[in-house]
Amino acid sequence: MKLVTDRIQKGEITPRITLIGAGPGDPDLLTIKGMRALNTADVVLYDALVNEALLNYAPESAVKVFIGKPTDDEAFSQKSVNKLIIDYALNFGHVVRLKSGDPFFFARGYEEIDFAESYSIPSEIIPGISSATGAPSLQKIPMIHKGLSESFWAVSGSDARGNLSADLRKAAASDATVVVLNGLDRVAEIAAVFQSHGKNRLPVAVIENGSTPAERVVVGVADTIAELVEEKKIAAPALLVFGAVVSLHPQFQPIRDFYELIANEGAY
Amino acid sequence: MKLVTDRIQKGEITPRITLIGAGPGDPDLLTIKGMRALNTADVVLYDALVNEALLNYAPESAVKVFIGKPTDDEAFSQKSVNKLIIDYALNFGHVVRLKSGDPFFFARGYEEIDFAESYSIPSEIIPGISSATGAPSLQKIPMIHKGLSESFWAVSGSDARGNLSADLRKAAASDATVVVLNGLDRVAEIAAVFQSHGKNRLPVAVIENGSTPAERVVVGVADTIAELVEEKKIAAPALLVFGAVVSLHPQFQPIRDFYELIANEGAY
Repeated sequence: MKLVTDRIQKGEITPRITLIGAGPGDPDLLTIKGMRALNTADVVLYDALVNEALLNYAPESAVKVFIGKPTDDEAFSQKSVNKLIIDYALNFGHVVRLKSGDPFFFARGYEEIDFAESYSIPSEIIPGISSATGAPSLQKIPMIHKGLSESFWAVSGSDARGNLSADLRKAAASDATVVVLNGLDRVAEIAAVFQSHGKNRLPVAVIENGSTPAERVVVGVADTIAELVEEKKIAAPALLVFGAVVSLHPQFQPIRDFYELIANEGAY
Repeated sequence: MKLVTDRIQKGEITPRITLIGAGPGDPDLLTIKGMRALNTADVVLYDALVNEALLNYAPESAVKVFIGKPTDDEAFSQKSVNKLIIDYALNFGHVVRLKSGDPFFFARGYEEIDFAESYSIPSEIIPGISSATGAPSLQKIPMIHKGLSESFWAVSGSDARGNLSADLRKAAASDATVVVLNGLDRVAEIAAVFQSHGKNRLPVAVIENGSTPAERVVVGVADTIAELVEEKKIAAPALLVFGAVVSLHPQFQPIRDFYELIANEGAY
């Protein structure tokens, strides 16, 4: 530590941290500002969902550290990531922390910046496109649309204790477009919440790997979406979009036709 | 029209449209993909809140058309903007439509793309950072934070008829972080909705010109925010953030201290 302090005082190392939102997956959806910050990185710490092509914007000499998903095990718990950032900043200088999406949206960017500031290390935030908004945009699903939705509610599938978020129950009762992150593995349970509010035919889209070449979308209604997800073997990372706005998606047209057919047959 | 069709058939003009989210204001918060699309623009149509510095990414020869806020008057109504896009695409080729924030979030990107597709003109969407998430990120206000918020609800201050959105009343009753766009001029009315739910001391931030050199922030509670906005002469564009997460902002500390002091005095 003595050695490091000496090097900092001699001006050889200027510790600083830049927290960057890498966007939803497509590396070209990084911001110009994020690209420039990477250009001057001494260290890059990146998450599981960050596209590794982005590392090419960092100097070849920069240390690149993959830290996976910071909740998975003790070795890379959020606490140890916080410490790692400080450690690298003091020893190497400019640490770029690359998080997928936007670092302050659902990610725990606040904790990392807060910890850095407790060490008086200067930090900067560069926002990114959250997949919550970016992935539906690319599927041409608007969040707000005249006559269909006046607001947009983004919820995590699970709360801090791993249960279905209480906010999700309230969201299902609202008229908002509801985007659920990290909810794929409990899509049936989540759809059931909407069904319990009588929204059996509410349009739903599930977007897998949004903005990447592996992007896939499944469109259905609350009654059918869990089955469709299983049938098409949709895998994480995926985003659920519940709302009347999904009816604007071209894949919804045959579903609408089907229900109209049923309604007409019932009328005979 | 004959002439145009001839030129298209001869391959001199390839009409196409790219709808780009310009981000919250800082031109460096444009995506790399957005920058590259601008590089090949024949025409750029841009909104009132788009930073004009972005026009430098377009060729000097490109036609740049400022179309203000498409709801203001008949000359630039949404319908006429839709038509303008087609017209320029048929006559010039690659039209870039630059919208502030994300084009599918609160903006009417869907209508523009939908209209273009009805003319069989190929279109591409490049998402952008919505100010709804980007501006709070830059103020280090997370949307979701352990123990403070499990979700994020974005609402427009007014519905299609110019009234307070009904969704806003439901949002005020929820535990979500509530971000209100286009709500500055009725901040007192909006704060009153939260007050009517007993949330008199709910932390509130108002962010003016987020991500630009003119950025200003005012932090208060539901009871005080309207007065603070008036006192500090906060002007549009500004974003309102209602939620316990605002308590993490450094400017909230003195407010907390003040209420603690009052509480202690009350105890004497």
